[in-house]
Amino acid sequence: MTVKISAAPMANQASDIEEGLTLAPRFGADGLVTAVVTDARSGDVLMVAHMNDEALAKTIETGEAWYYSRSRQKLWKKGESSGHLQRVIELRVDCDQDAVWLKVEQQGAGACHTGRRSCFYRAVPLGQTGAVKLEFRDGERAFDPKAVYGKS
Amino acid sequence: MTVKISAAPMANQASDIEEGLTLAPRFGADGLVTAVVTDARSGDVLMVAHMNDEALAKTIETGEAWYYSRSRQKLWKKGESSGHLQRVIELRVDCDQDAVWLKVEQQGAGACHTGRRSCFYRAVPLGQTGAVKLEFRDGERAFDPKAVYGKS
Repeated sequence: MTVKISAAPMANQASDIEEGLTLAPRFGADGLVTAVVTDARSGDVLMVAHMNDEALAKTIETGEAWYYSRSRQKLWKKGESSGHLQRVIELRVDCDQDAVWLKVEQQGAGACHTGRRSCFYRAVPLGQTGAVKLEFRDGERAFDPKAVYGKS
Repeated sequence: MTVKISAAPMANQASDIEEGLTLAPRFGADGLVTAVVTDARSGDVLMVAHMNDEALAKTIETGEAWYYSRSRQKLWKKGESSGHLQRVIELRVDCDQDAVWLKVEQQGAGACHTGRRSCFYRAVPLGQTGAVKLEFRDGERAFDPKAVYGKS
């Protein structure tokens, strides 16, 4: 038997969605919820991705992270190409059930397809005016994406 | 002079967006990017929100968190009703520039309109089958939302 996920009916009271114990995700018009992924050890945000009902069900069932790729329009197991799987230590849902938070143990060198540990490797300096210039932070590559994905 | 934010033109090379130093957010069809907000001290994810170009510009200029409310369809300064402002310690942008990460110092008792410190106060147990039953985690209220927002 697989995980049963019922999207929240429009009629659901906010109190049910916010205070209830039933997982009733509020998928968007695109059928997706937002998934925030943090490193269970460092607390750093590794990536932001999206899940449809099937990705969420597979993640709950297996304890490994599955997502839905908006660009490729398909279900996607994190690490299926790179080997950089994510073991989910804890999964949480937010108040209005349109976002989930995964604390993961990141397998392999990194989560980002550019070769960094995290996708968030550039800072936006605050208090600027005019055109905004980014600054690299933790921008060194943890792996060579060409070697891992076999393309440039 | 205010912050200038130019959305990434469709023709932009992935390499410019991913490796460049120009902030060129890839706003969705709804004009928004996803904003993940973590507590600068604990590393916990406090909330997930959205920003349009104006919210992002105001956040960069002021160092305080501004968002765009999809339900109310308006620009929104975090804490304008509750007094629970967010001082941004660091702002980062992700590889494809459709998400930002704010590490904040949360003013007041909490970030969530339900009265909790974080919006993510329920866990989804892993390895379940069938209907999924949530479990409260850090579910105690840090403030009384009725007292703060003046409504039930």
